[in-house]
Amino acid sequence: MPTSTTPLPRPAIAALQPQLVQWRRHLHRFPELGFQERATHRFIVQKLTSWGIDVREVAKTGVVATVTGQAEGPVLAVRADMDALPILERNGVDYASETPGVMHACGHDGHVTIALGTAFLLAQHRERLPGTVKFLFQPAEEGPGGALPMIAEGALEAPTVEAMIGLHLWNSLPIGQLGVKAGPSMADTAQFKVTITGKGGHGALPHQTIDAIVVGAQVVSALQTIVARNIDPFEPAVVTVGKFHGGSNFNIIAQTVELEGTVRCFAPELAQVLPARIEQVIAGICQAHGATYELAYRRHYPSVINDERVAALVRSVAEEFLGPDQVRPETTLGGEDMAFFLQKVPGCYFFLGSANPELGLDKPHHHPCFDFDEGALGLGVELFVRCLERFWQQPLDR
Amino acid sequence: MPTSTTPLPRPAIAALQPQLVQWRRHLHRFPELGFQERATHRFIVQKLTSWGIDVREVAKTGVVATVTGQAEGPVLAVRADMDALPILERNGVDYASETPGVMHACGHDGHVTIALGTAFLLAQHRERLPGTVKFLFQPAEEGPGGALPMIAEGALEAPTVEAMIGLHLWNSLPIGQLGVKAGPSMADTAQFKVTITGKGGHGALPHQTIDAIVVGAQVVSALQTIVARNIDPFEPAVVTVGKFHGGSNFNIIAQTVELEGTVRCFAPELAQVLPARIEQVIAGICQAHGATYELAYRRHYPSVINDERVAALVRSVAEEFLGPDQVRPETTLGGEDMAFFLQKVPGCYFFLGSANPELGLDKPHHHPCFDFDEGALGLGVELFVRCLERFWQQPLDR
Amino acid sequence: MPTSTTPLPRPAIAALQPQLVQWRRHLHRFPELGFQERATHRFIVQKLTSWGIDVREVAKTGVVATVTGQAEGPVLAVRADMDALPILERNGVDYASETPGVMHACGHDGHVTIALGTAFLLAQHRERLPGTVKFLFQPAEEGPGGALPMIAEGALEAPTVEAMIGLHLWNSLPIGQLGVKAGPSMADTAQFKVTITGKGGHGALPHQTIDAIVVGAQVVSALQTIVARNIDPFEPAVVTVGKFHGGSNFNIIAQTVELEGTVRCFAPELAQVLPARIEQVIAGICQAHGATYELAYRRHYPSVINDERVAALVRSVAEEFLGPDQVRPETTLGGEDMAFFLQKVPGCYFFLGSANPELGLDKPHHHPCFDFDEGALGLGVELFVRCLERFWQQPLDR
Amino acid sequence: MPTSTTPLPRPAIAALQPQLVQWRRHLHRFPELGFQERATHRFIVQKLTSWGIDVREVAKTGVVATVTGQAEGPVLAVRADMDALPILERNGVDYASETPGVMHACGHDGHVTIALGTAFLLAQHRERLPGTVKFLFQPAEEGPGGALPMIAEGALEAPTVEAMIGLHLWNSLPIGQLGVKAGPSMADTAQFKVTITGKGGHGALPHQTIDAIVVGAQVVSALQTIVARNIDPFEPAVVTVGKFHGGSNFNIIAQTVELEGTVRCFAPELAQVLPARIEQVIAGICQAHGATYELAYRRHYPSVINDERVAALVRSVAEEFLGPDQVRPETTLGGEDMAFFLQKVPGCYFFLGSANPELGLDKPHHHPCFDFDEGALGLGVELFVRCLERFWQQPLDR
Repeated sequence: MPTSTTPLPRPAIAALQPQLVQWRRHLHRFPELGFQERATHRFIVQKLTSWGIDVREVAKTGVVATVTGQAEGPVLAVRADMDALPILERNGVDYASETPGVMHACGHDGHVTIALGTAFLLAQHRERLPGTVKFLFQPAEEGPGGALPMIAEGALEAPTVEAMIGLHLWNSLPIGQLGVKAGPSMADTAQFKVTITGKGGHGALPHQTIDAIVVGAQVVSALQTIVARNIDPFEPAVVTVGKFHGGSNFNIIAQTVELEGTVRCFAPELAQVLPARIEQVIAGICQAHGATYELAYRRHYPSVINDERVAALVRSVAEEFLGPDQVRPETTLGGEDMAFFLQKVPGCYFFLGSANPELGLDKPHHHPCFDFDEGALGLGVELFVRCLERFWQQPLDR
Repeated sequence: MPTSTTPLPRPAIAALQPQLVQWRRHLHRFPELGFQERATHRFIVQKLTSWGIDVREVAKTGVVATVTGQAEGPVLAVRADMDALPILERNGVDYASETPGVMHACGHDGHVTIALGTAFLLAQHRERLPGTVKFLFQPAEEGPGGALPMIAEGALEAPTVEAMIGLHLWNSLPIGQLGVKAGPSMADTAQFKVTITGKGGHGALPHQTIDAIVVGAQVVSALQTIVARNIDPFEPAVVTVGKFHGGSNFNIIAQTVELEGTVRCFAPELAQVLPARIEQVIAGICQAHGATYELAYRRHYPSVINDERVAALVRSVAEEFLGPDQVRPETTLGGEDMAFFLQKVPGCYFFLGSANPELGLDKPHHHPCFDFDEGALGLGVELFVRCLERFWQQPLDR
Repeated sequence: MPTSTTPLPRPAIAALQPQLVQWRRHLHRFPELGFQERATHRFIVQKLTSWGIDVREVAKTGVVATVTGQAEGPVLAVRADMDALPILERNGVDYASETPGVMHACGHDGHVTIALGTAFLLAQHRERLPGTVKFLFQPAEEGPGGALPMIAEGALEAPTVEAMIGLHLWNSLPIGQLGVKAGPSMADTAQFKVTITGKGGHGALPHQTIDAIVVGAQVVSALQTIVARNIDPFEPAVVTVGKFHGGSNFNIIAQTVELEGTVRCFAPELAQVLPARIEQVIAGICQAHGATYELAYRRHYPSVINDERVAALVRSVAEEFLGPDQVRPETTLGGEDMAFFLQKVPGCYFFLGSANPELGLDKPHHHPCFDFDEGALGLGVELFVRCLERFWQQPLDR
Repeated sequence: MPTSTTPLPRPAIAALQPQLVQWRRHLHRFPELGFQERATHRFIVQKLTSWGIDVREVAKTGVVATVTGQAEGPVLAVRADMDALPILERNGVDYASETPGVMHACGHDGHVTIALGTAFLLAQHRERLPGTVKFLFQPAEEGPGGALPMIAEGALEAPTVEAMIGLHLWNSLPIGQLGVKAGPSMADTAQFKVTITGKGGHGALPHQTIDAIVVGAQVVSALQTIVARNIDPFEPAVVTVGKFHGGSNFNIIAQTVELEGTVRCFAPELAQVLPARIEQVIAGICQAHGATYELAYRRHYPSVINDERVAALVRSVAEEFLGPDQVRPETTLGGEDMAFFLQKVPGCYFFLGSANPELGLDKPHHHPCFDFDEGALGLGVELFVRCLERFWQQPLDR
């Protein structure tokens, strides 16, 4: 079929750039926290319906939009997360957040914009599309996670998605570069909180107590051995105790201490092993001293594991478009609930360089002055379009 | 000289008991914190002057009262501390504290009362006294300490005190018992606070940080070796970390941790060695990890060291008065600024049993329901009187 | 009865000194290890029988000798240990050990001599003695202990011993001084050995192993908290790991480590608590890391606890004989199986100063150049005689 | 030039297999330790010269053999290590080591054989070779390392080697598979030994000592934080303490402890940082306790870093020859002094599968029963030949 081999017109993408910037800045001004993205939802729905795209509401504030080309063609999906962060923006730009304490400090405004731009272009050429493309606008990526509810409400079905892509604007890379890697590329993340209870008492009478600070200190030291001794040195893993609060007075032996921490890894089997290992360490040290503990361990998201074939496709497209030197393997110990989609559907999540140090656009994500080079918006649209075209040319084995 | 060998009339002491109870309850109702004992001061001064006793104001709220007998006789001193604690009283008695959040929870109301009672008796028999007795009403024993300012303002001079005694009502012993020991009998106490500074950062990027919680945990563990390995097993010593606060978020590696603790010992040379040893441990562990620290180490009071001869005198008097089985050696890791007086003047500080479990009067000191058996007030007066008499009979070598 | 108040003739004791030196030097030349004291046994038995004293063999090489005075009088006992140590003597004296690798390096040759001298004197005046004195020559004090077998074989019975004394020549005190203390005065001692088993493996593959050295290191650190946190600061206690052997090669992760240590305390309840606490620490730390352990914990001797009355008697005698300034309370964390006798019979074990630095006689016990001032031998005999005389004058309440 | 595109005759390689087995078994019977490979040297030289190949002796027992084809053609090199291990062979095969305690337990007998086979084939077709091939037979790979002396003696010069390859028979992979990876593929390795000196003493008198075991234990625990906290989680690194020996007696506090360990990493900057970090930890902990230390830190070999282009060439050749599914990225934390050659010349070191579990040929390297499937010998020759041919077809940019 000729449709699949004819690329969509590139000038149309270039012409879209001012529109993309306008959309992104509008979204940036009105950021919303997870599952509260009501205005964002309305904005997305209003645009899509105005372009004649079929939309469905899922996961409270999420949107599934379907651009249907040839009915028997492959069904692909593009995912964009929608939510902002509880951060007070400190940028002085005229499109700065108008909601104090809430800010698009992770680029999700850009993600929505790129997906919208892609949808707009596809919708304009609907009759030429050799298959169907679903756009998954997902709430609450920053937590507690909108991917699972979207999957539960059927976002990947009717029609069934066969492959999917998504991107993260990425200030760790300069604009013009792209990071992509087959296999694990974002970490399995988890959070734990443990309360260790000894027996408090007078600071001068230790023998009448079980000193929870001493126990907690040994737990912290013993936890270091997990990464140092229990994990394959080739497997990235992190066990961090970020918070240690025990006791209220120099003179009173602490009854309890609270430790809170984060755990990161890639290998799915490590994600199973680490909570058990952490609890074993805590339990053993507590037992050694007659203390007790309560551990709350919460998995956040599993590892983002890119399909080898889809990752190769994205890499190949990116090398052609941006140049071979501009594409590098990129992994991060950060987490993403894109992971849940990729457990169900072969796909690839990649990092699109968005930093421009010369313009001061190089703050890290979640920084109150985070901003990115908006030139990345057009690049994102073109990459999505090129990837979809390549899918149609070289379908995955079905 | 006949005066010295004739005891003061015992019936007078017995008759004083109702008065003692009344004074003590008045003081209990109006407790005042250290260096704010203005009403207590006025109460004491009013009583003493009404009995014709010469008074002098020292150390803001303190009082030196002098009962002068034979001019060339020995000069002895009795010390009583005056201050209350920042504790909300929970006793339902009708003499409970009328100042919310301030309470005589350590028996100093009783100490003042016993000293007043003793002064009253001596003043009545002034012409018979073979020497001079100074009463040192001292503010702020609970901190920051009134003994040093009293000494600085000459409380031990003009005339020069040759020996002194003091007592603590003591709920660790039942009424009728007395604890006294030659040599060290209350601890040298100190307080420390150390801020350890590493380098904060993202919980998933430990290599970009110096994890202050890990450093702090190792400091806590290493501090344990001081008592376990560096102190003569026959020397009581305590190093307690009562507070460990580090980090604010499970996901962020802590930049700093704060440890606060208390240190107790008896031997004066240990009181010199311990701060150095603690700093050495902190410095070494910090250096091992590239962290820095700031340590504030504050000595509170030195050890209370009783003079052998005065302690023997008190012990002998107590064995006669209370019975030999009722007197026991008593030491405590608590501290007292009586220590400073005893560095200047040979003397003895002893513990007068004040608990009566059958009446529920057995709560520990500093407890919001602390109270004591007021029968101890009269015993205290009689012990002081008997000790003074014994001094006059058997003067220390001058 | 006149006998009890007439002291034995003092000149006889003085005249005995050359004999004492001769006996001691003979014993010193022929030292024997525990339960192998055959020549020592023969020497003792030969002397005693030559003086007409009744002897009985107990505990393989031990001797119970009975000097019977008035039949209805009190039965007292004097104990002396007999064994030497597996040490190569390095003294150049002409009475140095003639058995290479065995040496009287703890003064037991002197103890036997003093007891013999005392027996000799008593035997000479048998008809004047108001009661019976048993001499307990005990083997194997350095281990595994001869006191228990002697007790089991009836050494304290037929006739039943009512009070007993013993002494240790003591190079921590100069000759002319004596240490004695009521209550606990030598430590409860124990020994432990723990083998911790992890899982060995290649040094570069820690995740396939359980690193026994890491576990052992944490055990050592955690054991420090027992003395630092679990023991009353007023109670002397020591937990020492003297040996830590793990692994054979820099490049291989250790499968096992062996820790060996010693434990000392005075309070009998601590002697119960410490093994449990040590095992709890080891078990908990091992569990934390998935390692296993085998712990062998062997109590040596319980605390030597002197009877208050007998200690007062010894102290009083010593103050009279040596002068009040020469008598001091003395405790040591060393152990002694005299403890077992004192569990059965009220008694007192004291330390007789034997050092003479000017003569170079001040090496510590168990040193290959240990030797003592033989003037202490006569002092020892006279102290024993005076103590026995005082017993007869002022019997304990029977 | 026609020569470069015509492969060497494959049947010749197949026919060589019996010869390869014979050579390898001969070498296996007569293993020699590093720099003592005299018989091995003679064997190699005898073979090579019999084939008319020019040989030069280097690094005591090493051999540089040069097969010169077209003079102006590229100069390539093949490296084979020669030495055996101090292990007592426990295989019952008839070609088992005849030197007790020395064994080819790492496959170097096979490496020599494969290089010899390759040289034999090339020499037969010398006139057709489009360039020169140097064979580097290297002594003492197991330590102290023969690569550096070979380089120092000019093995890579005259003519200058432009690219080189080498292989390791590898029982972690089954025969028929091959492991190869661009960039770091074997670890930088180092060894350390630290003696910590405290102050020894009696087990009951810790305050008179500095307990070296307590210090050593804290060093072990603190060293765990290096991998856990100071290394980028994406960078493999290992710090192992394999040996901890301290103290000789349960009852004596240890004066010294000795720790020995191994350190592994890939990144060259880590190889610089790790020794400094390890010393900082040791120094800080020792300072915390007043102990001293002596540290001997010995780098073994740097990381083996494969050139991207040569690794791609090897991979491509292997995928063609063995099948794409049989080639996998392989890295190991083991070390190799091939690293030094690869610092000078672009090249690739790869792992040739040699295990055959069905035949019981799957013991790990350095195991006393190590043996491999000799079918790998012919595969190794063919891979070397194919790689050389590919080099000639597609020279690296010169």
